[in-house]
Amino acid sequence: MRFTIEYLVTCLQGETIQEKALGIALEQSVELPTSVLDAWILANTAGKVESIKETGEKTFLVECSYAVSIVDGDLTQFLNVLLGNISLKPGIQVINVDWETIQDWFPGPRFGVEGVRVNMGIPNRPLSCSALKPIGFTIDKLADIAFQFATGGIDIIKDDHGIADQRHAPFSERVKACVEAVNHAHDLTGKQTWYFPNVTTKGSKLIDRFREAEDLGAQGVLLCPQLCGLEMMADLASSDVNLPIMAHPSFSGTYLGAINGFSHSFLYGSLWRAFGADFVIYPNNGGRFSFTLDECIGINQAALDPMVPYARTFPTPGGGVDRNKIPEWRAKYGNDIVFLMGASLYKHPEGIKAATIEVQEALNQ
Amino acid sequence: MRFTIEYLVTCLQGETIQEKALGIALEQSVELPTSVLDAWILANTAGKVESIKETGEKTFLVECSYAVSIVDGDLTQFLNVLLGNISLKPGIQVINVDWETIQDWFPGPRFGVEGVRVNMGIPNRPLSCSALKPIGFTIDKLADIAFQFATGGIDIIKDDHGIADQRHAPFSERVKACVEAVNHAHDLTGKQTWYFPNVTTKGSKLIDRFREAEDLGAQGVLLCPQLCGLEMMADLASSDVNLPIMAHPSFSGTYLGAINGFSHSFLYGSLWRAFGADFVIYPNNGGRFSFTLDECIGINQAALDPMVPYARTFPTPGGGVDRNKIPEWRAKYGNDIVFLMGASLYKHPEGIKAATIEVQEALNQ
Repeated sequence: MRFTIEYLVTCLQGETIQEKALGIALEQSVELPTSVLDAWILANTAGKVESIKETGEKTFLVECSYAVSIVDGDLTQFLNVLLGNISLKPGIQVINVDWETIQDWFPGPRFGVEGVRVNMGIPNRPLSCSALKPIGFTIDKLADIAFQFATGGIDIIKDDHGIADQRHAPFSERVKACVEAVNHAHDLTGKQTWYFPNVTTKGSKLIDRFREAEDLGAQGVLLCPQLCGLEMMADLASSDVNLPIMAHPSFSGTYLGAINGFSHSFLYGSLWRAFGADFVIYPNNGGRFSFTLDECIGINQAALDPMVPYARTFPTPGGGVDRNKIPEWRAKYGNDIVFLMGASLYKHPEGIKAATIEVQEALNQ
Repeated sequence: MRFTIEYLVTCLQGETIQEKALGIALEQSVELPTSVLDAWILANTAGKVESIKETGEKTFLVECSYAVSIVDGDLTQFLNVLLGNISLKPGIQVINVDWETIQDWFPGPRFGVEGVRVNMGIPNRPLSCSALKPIGFTIDKLADIAFQFATGGIDIIKDDHGIADQRHAPFSERVKACVEAVNHAHDLTGKQTWYFPNVTTKGSKLIDRFREAEDLGAQGVLLCPQLCGLEMMADLASSDVNLPIMAHPSFSGTYLGAINGFSHSFLYGSLWRAFGADFVIYPNNGGRFSFTLDECIGINQAALDPMVPYARTFPTPGGGVDRNKIPEWRAKYGNDIVFLMGASLYKHPEGIKAATIEVQEALNQ
């Protein structure tokens, strides 16, 4: 059995598309020229070019197929076949994978949009999210900020992704205090805000931190999958710890080359979805980063694509959304979206709670 | 205490260098505008711009400093401060870190050039290395190739980086058979070739595979750090398993943007050295990838820089080196180098052993 990968290939000076496409198929499988390969290897484990379509001047849509046996369900080896050595070759961008054939290799989101909505009791409207910051604050201050957001009624409050296990706010004590803060707010208001601590750490201790988050009562976690190795997100999503994962794009931006790496929609909407992200944060158009509106919509469509055989992932655009612009973004993105707002809430003249109340009013309209 | 990071910054349309540099310092630390920060945070945990020097039209050398407390020895958080969110912003390339200040956070290579030379008994000349391939071969065939290379006298034979734990050549049985092959060759010829199995897998089981490699008698391992999460390389280098690590660049190429990510010399020569690579493989100039000669020499210089407070890393250029060109590359690169040769040895009309004998003769001249 074979699975296929689609690439957008740009021919640079002196390159022909036939040679470049065959180069991809061989590089990502046997790593030897065909002249040195025996007939069995050529037929069974070498990658093959399945189709080439010209899409523009020197750009081509190329489909290659690979034997499932060269991956054999190993997700790190899958990433190697997907973009290992060709990450070093200019003019090759991965834009799609036929997930159906290799569906069983990947967990997909444990909860996804539907599971999160059921557990949160919010059937239709967009969700709100903000970040605890800045790095350097003590646990008391961070927990107080969590309390302000929660009494304002925010849906999700996550750690800033740089808040790890530093001695000014160690992981265990911070999670305890912030869980207590959102639960205390629940007692007062009846609204349960979900708190997502940042569990990002090296792969060898990630599951312990994920489990501790659950044991301490957190309702989900924040994870930077490109920092800790992408397969570790799938490892968590397949573990016995029953928490949703919000994936953060730290350290992933270089994969979004103009003619290289991954397309925006593939990386955040497809690949991270297959690897188990219930939420995928990306820099929104109009914020302090540089995604176009089309790129953002492409991510949303891939994350929510009903044809992909996994639960749907909540797109979570951050940046460029302030409370006054929620109706505008909702019109563009629809209801299956999480608005991640940071600085605009911290800056509100009447404080975080007042800012959050305005956000929730806008979302409930 | 603070440590510094140097960036090459390119101003794009509408950007001023002052704003962009401050943007880096804040983005990589507190992630809030200064207007929202209190005086203590501004003084103690916010990043600071230390200097800006114009180096060309719209390009600047920028140095920012960060409080060591925001990293606190956590290597994954270090990577986040180094290139987390700014990986998403065009025109920012990390080119240096003052390792001295934060020396204790990183293991550096366990053996390095000196340790490898002592253990191998090769005091001066360049080393040779080749790869077992192709993926799809059975263990018997791979072990036979290892035997041919070893009887020819190669210094190191490594698994191809796509050979993982597939059922056609499972890890444990493959390592046993290939260790036996190089040891059998040693019995016949007196020369001990080192065999490096590929241990790359997800972070949660990497240490087990590393330990198993040692238990089964391998003399080192191959690892793709960007696939398994970079901190995991440091985890292995700091573990109780006493094997050298050869780092492979799979999945790392997108970090080498023209004006983004990392410079070639920083990523492979500096960063991977600090994180514990005894050998660092990179695509050689003139091979099937596209590094310039200057980029290659830059990597070698950084890997061997005596001013950096870690053991020196063996640069291991692959591609573009065939046995006839060894004298030429040796003249360019010096003796502290490992020549990684693949296809050119497999293609030799008289076979792998004969090809390897020619290589070793060239190295011994």
